[in-house]
Amino acid sequence: MIGYVIGRILWTEAVLLLLPAVVALLYGEPALPFLGPVLLLLLAGLPFRKKPGQTALYARDGFAVVALAWVLMSAFGALPFLLSGYIPSFIDAFFETVSGFTTTGATILTAVEPLSQGILFWRSFTHWIGGMGVLVFVMAVLPMTDGHGMHLLRAEMPGPSVGKLVSRMSDTAKILYGIYLVMTLVEIVLLVLGGMPLFDACIHSFGSAGTGGFSSKNLSVGAYDNAYFDVVIGVFMLLFGVNFNLYYFLLIRRFRDVFRSEELWAYAAIVGASVVAIAVDILHMYESFAQSLRYSFFQVASIITTTGYATADFNLWPTFSKGILAVLMFVGACAGSTGGGIKVARIVILAKTSWGDMRKMLHPNAVTTTRFEGKALTDKHIRSVHLFITVYLLVFTASFLLLTLNGYDLVSTFTAVSACINNIGPGLEVVGPMGNFAGFSWWAKLLLSFDMLVGRLEIFPMLLLFAPSIWKRRRIIRRM
Amino acid sequence: MIGYVIGRILWTEAVLLLLPAVVALLYGEPALPFLGPVLLLLLAGLPFRKKPGQTALYARDGFAVVALAWVLMSAFGALPFLLSGYIPSFIDAFFETVSGFTTTGATILTAVEPLSQGILFWRSFTHWIGGMGVLVFVMAVLPMTDGHGMHLLRAEMPGPSVGKLVSRMSDTAKILYGIYLVMTLVEIVLLVLGGMPLFDACIHSFGSAGTGGFSSKNLSVGAYDNAYFDVVIGVFMLLFGVNFNLYYFLLIRRFRDVFRSEELWAYAAIVGASVVAIAVDILHMYESFAQSLRYSFFQVASIITTTGYATADFNLWPTFSKGILAVLMFVGACAGSTGGGIKVARIVILAKTSWGDMRKMLHPNAVTTTRFEGKALTDKHIRSVHLFITVYLLVFTASFLLLTLNGYDLVSTFTAVSACINNIGPGLEVVGPMGNFAGFSWWAKLLLSFDMLVGRLEIFPMLLLFAPSIWKRRRIIRRM
Repeated sequence: MIGYVIGRILWTEAVLLLLPAVVALLYGEPALPFLGPVLLLLLAGLPFRKKPGQTALYARDGFAVVALAWVLMSAFGALPFLLSGYIPSFIDAFFETVSGFTTTGATILTAVEPLSQGILFWRSFTHWIGGMGVLVFVMAVLPMTDGHGMHLLRAEMPGPSVGKLVSRMSDTAKILYGIYLVMTLVEIVLLVLGGMPLFDACIHSFGSAGTGGFSSKNLSVGAYDNAYFDVVIGVFMLLFGVNFNLYYFLLIRRFRDVFRSEELWAYAAIVGASVVAIAVDILHMYESFAQSLRYSFFQVASIITTTGYATADFNLWPTFSKGILAVLMFVGACAGSTGGGIKVARIVILAKTSWGDMRKMLHPNAVTTTRFEGKALTDKHIRSVHLFITVYLLVFTASFLLLTLNGYDLVSTFTAVSACINNIGPGLEVVGPMGNFAGFSWWAKLLLSFDMLVGRLEIFPMLLLFAPSIWKRRRIIRRM
Repeated sequence: MIGYVIGRILWTEAVLLLLPAVVALLYGEPALPFLGPVLLLLLAGLPFRKKPGQTALYARDGFAVVALAWVLMSAFGALPFLLSGYIPSFIDAFFETVSGFTTTGATILTAVEPLSQGILFWRSFTHWIGGMGVLVFVMAVLPMTDGHGMHLLRAEMPGPSVGKLVSRMSDTAKILYGIYLVMTLVEIVLLVLGGMPLFDACIHSFGSAGTGGFSSKNLSVGAYDNAYFDVVIGVFMLLFGVNFNLYYFLLIRRFRDVFRSEELWAYAAIVGASVVAIAVDILHMYESFAQSLRYSFFQVASIITTTGYATADFNLWPTFSKGILAVLMFVGACAGSTGGGIKVARIVILAKTSWGDMRKMLHPNAVTTTRFEGKALTDKHIRSVHLFITVYLLVFTASFLLLTLNGYDLVSTFTAVSACINNIGPGLEVVGPMGNFAGFSWWAKLLLSFDMLVGRLEIFPMLLLFAPSIWKRRRIIRRM
């Protein structure tokens, strides 16, 4: 069954690669760097084409499928960069593709403008594919006979809890992808109406929809210096950082559920407070409050959603503004959105649980229940959020220590790990908004690729891939 | 009852202040800066001299007593600095005293060598008093009629769990202080035998016993450039970072309990691995491996125990070494020792619990119990460790954000908070081993003083001091 799902994913990637091939042909560029990998993917998927008799997928299989699928997708997705000659090293191309699919937006390229249109398109399209998750896509088109697809969705979707919207898994996936597609199209149209070329509008809509951050300009969105574009992209980044379930509730007119969402209110409050605080803090650097508000709004939207676009070099801002942005990097967007980071829902749960536990210290006999989104949090649920934070910190620390061996300064090393594990893209100093990841050694790039996957798949699928029992049990089943 | 305990603490401080007064007289310095506060403390303690009829102390009272006691102790302890004229601002003197009692070792003084001998003695003596805890001391000399002293000990002793060694609380406190005193005396004797002046030997033994870090030299222990001193102080810092319960077990010949201590093994493994890794990393900077081992050993011992002494400017070491030291700052020493930080026991519990929880993800039906120090960890116990880490992170983040308003660079701001909340002393850049905290504004110094107390008292007493219900309930009782 695992092979079957992975085979389908490889074939899906082959189909998706046809799109940049068409773009390349339209611009009169060679399409071979795309069609070659398409053929390879079709061949690689062949041995797994038969649907097995047993279609059950257990929790551990879900983790294995998701982790393997993302690694394989990235390895095959790196081929166009390699074959086109723009990124001659496979590890560099793999890093760039992982950065794309995980919607990180970290790059090893020193300049993006020399790239061909086809390659630029594929690079940003990986953001769009990775944003909502390729497995969700596969599930939308490949109905599973039983309900075990839930394990896949749970392993791929960001956030502490994923619920089914409708009873059938595949319908849930279809609804999510439909909303995602429509919102992306609306953003493209709005950008084109404002005067952005269609190609650029696609690139930046893919980048904001997936909260990725790859641009077709060296100066990112700042290259246009256009307030309208800033507002449109800023607003859409924030919209893509909202839990997609809420959009579904809007569609079926459950407005109450939307307006009562604690996570949405917390997200709005954090964004609002940060925008105002930074706008006041950087006021002396700009001509008017409207100006500083514009740059503050865009940067807060870009960082909290972990997109990573920039319209100003925030390295030059005062320490307070940089401090706020640094904290927002870890906060991240809402659960069930395309954004990365720890997620607002987890922060709210941690804060409320801690508050309740501290009250219990003062009144040991009081009965307290912590509620989130109207439901009482079970101990099991709270434990899983604590587990996430703990393992997140342990992986972060281990990666940081290993990366110091690369020899860069502490700030570059710390923010490089932070930018990758939170799927943001740029960090500070060497890896700042005007820098890139080209200088890291090959093992450091592999480590950071691992961190990006850890961040995108919310840690456990990637870590459990190394657990011996994931492989052991499967062999036993085969032997029977 | 709360007033009674606090009154006793003020009187105890008055008695302890006589020691630096004697030192001042011996060196022919004015004793008034010490005798004045002694008089004040005696007067302040007068209203609370009567033992109340009701001697019960509940959990929330324990928190309130500990937090209030430490704040008052620091306010009165700051007077000698103020009256002697060496630190003319009260906030600076308060910061210095909090730094002393919390065994942090952060200073606002640009040079310590101009200070009088009496002031230097008091400054380092606060480390010794704060190391084992002044409440523990009070309990050793002031037997409580019922068993509620446990709440006080629990609130003041570092670490996730405090057990009674013997059935009577006051005997436990006496045993702990006895071991503490004897070990300090042994260190003084060893340093004097090696040729260190008696006064300096006292200063540096107080500093290492409390894992504080105040020195009588501007260049810290590095001023002597003596390998024997480095080894003695290094070894004693590590010894004072061990859980004191283990020394008691040694005394009563329960060797098995000592050698089976998971925390001790983890502590030894972390120290050993860090010393070797740094020694190899800095080998090219020193003449021989013995040399680099000497500096590496001293610095690892100083940082993991959160003492903060320095024999080399580790700011100049390679990033890998600095990265290891940065991580050790957060790890901290063992529970039940005089050291600060998160504590090795908590790290081990978090790692083992996470491992168990991840196994459960793969095998949802497996029954797993996580054991620590031979006992199964209860869910309540694990929850309290998770609560600690979460609140620690929240306080850290809030302090960091507030401190960025002071305008220093990100590294200085981050490491200043880290150095204070982990009770280490020096950070990096502005607050590096050769820098100091003088440049911070008055509110930043108060914030950092709060962080030092938060770190020393393990967060909750200080936070709960702000809970309205701590004050509300008391008023109700009085009205009855």
